[in-house]
Amino acid sequence: MKSQMKGRDFLTVWDFSKEEIETILDLAFRLKSDIAAGIPHEFLKNKTLFMLFYNRSLRTRNSFEVGMTQLGGHANYLDPEKVYTPAMEGEEQAFATERISDVARVLARYGEGIAIRLFGDPTGWRYKRGNQILKEFAYWADVPVINMEDDVYHPCQGMADLMTMVEKLGDLQKKKIVMSWAYSPSIKKPVSVPHSVMTVSSFFGAHIVFARPDGFELDPEILDKVKENTRRYGGTFEETNNMREAFAGADVVYPKCWPSLKFMPPATDEFDAKAQTELFTKNRDWICDMEKLRIASPDVFYMHCLPCDRGFEVTDEVADGPNSVIFDQAENRLHVQKAIMVLTMK
Amino acid sequence: MKSQMKGRDFLTVWDFSKEEIETILDLAFRLKSDIAAGIPHEFLKNKTLFMLFYNRSLRTRNSFEVGMTQLGGHANYLDPEKVYTPAMEGEEQAFATERISDVARVLARYGEGIAIRLFGDPTGWRYKRGNQILKEFAYWADVPVINMEDDVYHPCQGMADLMTMVEKLGDLQKKKIVMSWAYSPSIKKPVSVPHSVMTVSSFFGAHIVFARPDGFELDPEILDKVKENTRRYGGTFEETNNMREAFAGADVVYPKCWPSLKFMPPATDEFDAKAQTELFTKNRDWICDMEKLRIASPDVFYMHCLPCDRGFEVTDEVADGPNSVIFDQAENRLHVQKAIMVLTMK
Amino acid sequence: MKSQMKGRDFLTVWDFSKEEIETILDLAFRLKSDIAAGIPHEFLKNKTLFMLFYNRSLRTRNSFEVGMTQLGGHANYLDPEKVYTPAMEGEEQAFATERISDVARVLARYGEGIAIRLFGDPTGWRYKRGNQILKEFAYWADVPVINMEDDVYHPCQGMADLMTMVEKLGDLQKKKIVMSWAYSPSIKKPVSVPHSVMTVSSFFGAHIVFARPDGFELDPEILDKVKENTRRYGGTFEETNNMREAFAGADVVYPKCWPSLKFMPPATDEFDAKAQTELFTKNRDWICDMEKLRIASPDVFYMHCLPCDRGFEVTDEVADGPNSVIFDQAENRLHVQKAIMVLTMK
Repeated sequence: MKSQMKGRDFLTVWDFSKEEIETILDLAFRLKSDIAAGIPHEFLKNKTLFMLFYNRSLRTRNSFEVGMTQLGGHANYLDPEKVYTPAMEGEEQAFATERISDVARVLARYGEGIAIRLFGDPTGWRYKRGNQILKEFAYWADVPVINMEDDVYHPCQGMADLMTMVEKLGDLQKKKIVMSWAYSPSIKKPVSVPHSVMTVSSFFGAHIVFARPDGFELDPEILDKVKENTRRYGGTFEETNNMREAFAGADVVYPKCWPSLKFMPPATDEFDAKAQTELFTKNRDWICDMEKLRIASPDVFYMHCLPCDRGFEVTDEVADGPNSVIFDQAENRLHVQKAIMVLTMK
Repeated sequence: MKSQMKGRDFLTVWDFSKEEIETILDLAFRLKSDIAAGIPHEFLKNKTLFMLFYNRSLRTRNSFEVGMTQLGGHANYLDPEKVYTPAMEGEEQAFATERISDVARVLARYGEGIAIRLFGDPTGWRYKRGNQILKEFAYWADVPVINMEDDVYHPCQGMADLMTMVEKLGDLQKKKIVMSWAYSPSIKKPVSVPHSVMTVSSFFGAHIVFARPDGFELDPEILDKVKENTRRYGGTFEETNNMREAFAGADVVYPKCWPSLKFMPPATDEFDAKAQTELFTKNRDWICDMEKLRIASPDVFYMHCLPCDRGFEVTDEVADGPNSVIFDQAENRLHVQKAIMVLTMK
Repeated sequence: MKSQMKGRDFLTVWDFSKEEIETILDLAFRLKSDIAAGIPHEFLKNKTLFMLFYNRSLRTRNSFEVGMTQLGGHANYLDPEKVYTPAMEGEEQAFATERISDVARVLARYGEGIAIRLFGDPTGWRYKRGNQILKEFAYWADVPVINMEDDVYHPCQGMADLMTMVEKLGDLQKKKIVMSWAYSPSIKKPVSVPHSVMTVSSFFGAHIVFARPDGFELDPEILDKVKENTRRYGGTFEETNNMREAFAGADVVYPKCWPSLKFMPPATDEFDAKAQTELFTKNRDWICDMEKLRIASPDVFYMHCLPCDRGFEVTDEVADGPNSVIFDQAENRLHVQKAIMVLTMK
């Protein structure tokens, strides 16, 4: 087993082997236990992580910033409007933008890692555009680039969710994990979380069920990888358009809203809010309430990356009830990201 | 005497006993002396304070951020527009806001304290609305919530002012402390400072004089508490609409502008700028100049929380003159807030 | 030789002697070598630098913030819109601005240094206005004020450029250093960099050539100082309107855009974008490409402060070619600024 991950980017969990994923988890659990016991680990003493946020953030920003502080370093919070906005070659505007190759190479001279969040409006909702920009940064930066959520993946959320499932279930072998669509009046969200949750789950022999109304299918290329990986590690994968059927006997349910890839670029010229809203409205009954939760295992864990749209994706009764582990998930962001930083940053 | 304040919120000085207030002051003086001597105290090593600012800030933000740095920790500066804007239940908007109960519970999983400033425009100038939101955060957060100024109290300013008065006067017993209204063309300020200054002064046997033109009376409930507490601790309380009379023989004068509670919600439907301006304009002569200062004790201390509106609330001659202690007050924000953080945060 | 610079402002290199400049360079080289070797120097442990940015920044902000982190301290990133905007006496607006004398005196009570960037739009493009405001801060602050670029000087860039030239050339004696104008469609840039590059070069016996089209002459007072200082230290100074002639045999070329002082206040009532654009457009051929670079010494170093306007000021072939040292320049910002902070801040 190769434990050395120094210098590697963390753009997607697919870039890491099962053994490496387990190494990250092991360190995350150790860091979680040690910080609770007051044992300090200044692994990144006086080091810097740059955090570039094109979108709002509560958990991601604060868990990374707190993580760097706990590790003895510091995270610089950067607003793209306050630096010369990073731009791809050919999309530059003199003295307002700066070519990504330059931004990445300069920051790599100062700090030890670059973390980026980018999806949605700043990319015109062109699917994979955010991911492409993160890859451009990673190509040019000599230091690790960490994906804080782009329009394809949210690997740190995925790792925190995996950590939470392992924490709660011990072992994912034969466990039924349901990644489900849920309704929200907010149609503008990335598809990164369901992609990442199914990705991490596919390594550990789980029975993954992907539930979504017709029209909310996800990236077929990623689903194929999930299927193949699930098979490889002794699990199963199932896709359904019936939320109730999916919930039956589930050990974990993760009901969450995302828009249809059919009504955003490149499938359409622009993000088609009208078509999305029509499709969303037809599926208002995809809510996670107590009635649906009772179909699942009595000890089912309700998961969500937050913020959840209370009253739409989920009822307060579920979100604040005994089956909910949403705040443990949020907390595990901190521990697992500390592990990722310690392992990849010099 | 109970010296243990760990885990407690710092929303108003009223939540603390005289002994506890003295404990805070004692530590503040010790920290002030030690930092001047170069003696470090990393009481909050690698710990995090979240600072959520709905309003502008120079002193508060920087004194808290410097304070955390001196204590070995770090303060995360948060703009509500850059997180999912915290919202009360029933006032949420999907993917733009996040319910305060969720925000508070998540942040409490990462850091050791949450400090908030909120008054005025973001609350529609509905008196007590900011305070109510801070209490909501405090209800849900497992870590101390510190009031960095809401629309009712500014307890950290009050404590710094108290520290400054003790520093200058030694003992407040029988000292005449004048909290006075003063004119400014800026009508949109909170009433939190006069409430807090009179609150802290009421514990130490001072002769408190509250001077304001008719129409600028403050919250009667708080004034009643101040009167009762003043009496309890051997001081006196007096209210007057005559600035000159108030200044006679004063040891401390604190002339400062605030708007009328009569012309803001809930007393009116919305902040009535026209009525405020009329009432303000009638009282343009409420300025602290050398002529008025000469009515006071020769050693009178001129105080202000800053920013002061020079030429309106006070003349340059007074603000920059030998009686002014405004920069000592500003500095004491740092020391007293460090003491509050050390005592309440784990 | 006097090595003591504690407490001094760093507004322009002209305020320092050749010996002091060498002391800064010496420390910068030592800090660069030590950080590469992993030798920590917490010279500013738990200390604070305030950074006030009126303009965008990538390199300056991050090199200062990383620098403070490496030195064990912290840099507070301040947006003038989020504090009470600092204002000169007579230009104040109640509760939106705060007089600079107050801002400076308050910050000096909390932290150990104040760094400011200010030029262009926030000063109405009135030449020297930004510099005047920095001087006002420096007048009132008891702690060092560091110029992070105003509308006259960018001394930290100058020092990083000097460090880079020394690193590459060993000795500037008799070396031909060409500071040249170059074309960009972006007409709104400060003139601070060419002023600062020629200033630092004038201390070391270099052959300075200043190339610009007619109309892009710089501040005659500064050019006179450069000439006089160059002469004093055994170098030469030459001015030309011919880019190719200037490049002949050059050891260093620094081609960079700046606007004409003739078409901005106080020479004109306001920044005359039309006249600037006309003058700019006439000189579109002032680009640093391979053809022009071949006129220079075979080992010529191409320099730029970044962001460079690729395709206008310089071709990609030059900027990313073997003669380019732009990322070394960017990196040296970090080391030289750490030296400046260590030497001036307590």
